[in-house]
Amino acid sequence: MFLSKPTIESIALLESEILKAGRGYLEKEGFIEIIVPRMVRANGSCENVNTLFEVSVDQNFDWFNGKKCYLAQTGQLYLESLVPLLQKVYCAGDSFRAEPKIDARHLTEFYLMEIEFAGNFDELLAHVEGFINAIVTDLVEKQETELEKLDLDEDRRKELAQTPKIFPKITYDEAIKLLQKMGEKINWGNDITTAQEKKLVEHFGNQPLFITHYPDPLWDHGQLIEVEKFFNMIPDEKNPGRVLSADLILPYDGEAVGAAQRVHQVETLKYRLQNSRMFKMLKNKGGSIDDFSWYIKNLEKKRLDPSCWLRFWYVAHSQMATRQRRHPPMRDFSY
Amino acid sequence: MFLSKPTIESIALLESEILKAGRGYLEKEGFIEIIVPRMVRANGSCENVNTLFEVSVDQNFDWFNGKKCYLAQTGQLYLESLVPLLQKVYCAGDSFRAEPKIDARHLTEFYLMEIEFAGNFDELLAHVEGFINAIVTDLVEKQETELEKLDLDEDRRKELAQTPKIFPKITYDEAIKLLQKMGEKINWGNDITTAQEKKLVEHFGNQPLFITHYPDPLWDHGQLIEVEKFFNMIPDEKNPGRVLSADLILPYDGEAVGAAQRVHQVETLKYRLQNSRMFKMLKNKGGSIDDFSWYIKNLEKKRLDPSCWLRFWYVAHSQMATRQRRHPPMRDFSY
Repeated sequence: MFLSKPTIESIALLESEILKAGRGYLEKEGFIEIIVPRMVRANGSCENVNTLFEVSVDQNFDWFNGKKCYLAQTGQLYLESLVPLLQKVYCAGDSFRAEPKIDARHLTEFYLMEIEFAGNFDELLAHVEGFINAIVTDLVEKQETELEKLDLDEDRRKELAQTPKIFPKITYDEAIKLLQKMGEKINWGNDITTAQEKKLVEHFGNQPLFITHYPDPLWDHGQLIEVEKFFNMIPDEKNPGRVLSADLILPYDGEAVGAAQRVHQVETLKYRLQNSRMFKMLKNKGGSIDDFSWYIKNLEKKRLDPSCWLRFWYVAHSQMATRQRRHPPMRDFSY
Repeated sequence: MFLSKPTIESIALLESEILKAGRGYLEKEGFIEIIVPRMVRANGSCENVNTLFEVSVDQNFDWFNGKKCYLAQTGQLYLESLVPLLQKVYCAGDSFRAEPKIDARHLTEFYLMEIEFAGNFDELLAHVEGFINAIVTDLVEKQETELEKLDLDEDRRKELAQTPKIFPKITYDEAIKLLQKMGEKINWGNDITTAQEKKLVEHFGNQPLFITHYPDPLWDHGQLIEVEKFFNMIPDEKNPGRVLSADLILPYDGEAVGAAQRVHQVETLKYRLQNSRMFKMLKNKGGSIDDFSWYIKNLEKKRLDPSCWLRFWYVAHSQMATRQRRHPPMRDFSY
């Protein structure tokens, strides 16, 4: 089907187009770009500290005042620290994951845009919709000749033009029940696989779909749960044992955005950090709360207001635009 | 003098403002943003492979099919590979250097914007001037209240407004003679120190200054030279033993841009790579031409046209704007 296409040019052009449209949305909305560090302590990790890449010089790991140095997976805690000062911030750049299994969903290195702002869960979902729609609108309004350069055709344009402004939303609990009704082997507490996400998206008309209110990993569910969410997601007062989180699943791709409202009570935040599965992993790795020293020190200095964060998986958006799974072009010939 | 100022907010706001203005210039000029890999082989190094950070997982260095993995210092060779396809490209992100001595000029991690385009040396210098002037104009045109948020005052605005559209240019040879006349202890072939750069800039009215035509590191000068330039800079036909390179020195800061026209004869490029000081260092480190395998393979497939590249050191621009040396804010509380 695609013997010579997509070309490396069309992928690069599409990536830069999506980057520009997404960034344009954030700047129009008043988000300030922050340059976050990418060489960090374990505080730069997401849920799984065991997938951190280490940094050394001539195999010497004591280069950073005797402290272990890792490649960042997220700039989130840095953004969080700036929200009380700047209200709306974002960062863009590479996220590094030592994923033993590499596929379209698991990459060792990929581009991530992350935002954090003072606001509530509804505003968070609206920003996700606004961001995706800014990219879709940008592509839909392209001239035909421009569209060709991006390796998109008139059919794809028409399909993209159908993207709704407001996306359907189901809770994790509803998603599990729906999948079970479809005959899928899945229990409450399990991770939803990529294939199962695809089925859910198709059920809702093959459009972007939110799955919200995932199980709170720090709640006693009376059973082990497979789903793992970041410690700083806030428990939902109306739904005991669930957090105010949202994943966006895109057609032709899968999870493209992870988002949540954050805990803003400092003591609760510290408690959740130190009782998270991530923190247990860190201790097993020989790390300690010292890896979060600047973050904790900073938390103790200030009052937090309710705020939300989200991460846009950038590769996912180009995959949705083209209806194909493909990797960023430059990685292909690196190794 | 600056007990409470600059604040972390004003630094972050100024950085994001400069980033936006610089990026705006590149997009107006039709440069396409490329996402380059940051985990690379030794081909991601600048002149000194001994300052590469290594990447491992649980102290295991064989994670990348038994090949050593480093953190990129430049995305230049990736951009170079795309110029025949896209003509004007750029990348933006972190450069990582294992610098044993850390000061305002030597950072372990800093933000770099790099461009590469099909064109000649004069166009290259014009892009540097255009980029810097886009940033200056953006700041000069700010409302007073906006300026205050960036911790810039009316005096600084007036001073910035004096920035010429075209910058003075001297060759490396002229710079050495001038410094000697000023009583500086410097010989032809030596590196120009930051203090000496400052004297040159002051001599030319404290405005941005180009130093061009550095010694060709691959020419037999009959003496050892300290100056080290990247292997792919093109020798100047009119000035034997010199390359078509340009460094931009900014007032209050120092070197802020490194730029050159590139060799476009494939065989010469391969010869210069394998006879560079960098390549000797790489061999001493246990590396080989295999570290450049994709690059060489790619070179052999295509015809190159004359093209130029340049690197904007991003920190430098915020230092020039404020008249002070200071680091990016987020790094301060990381370790």
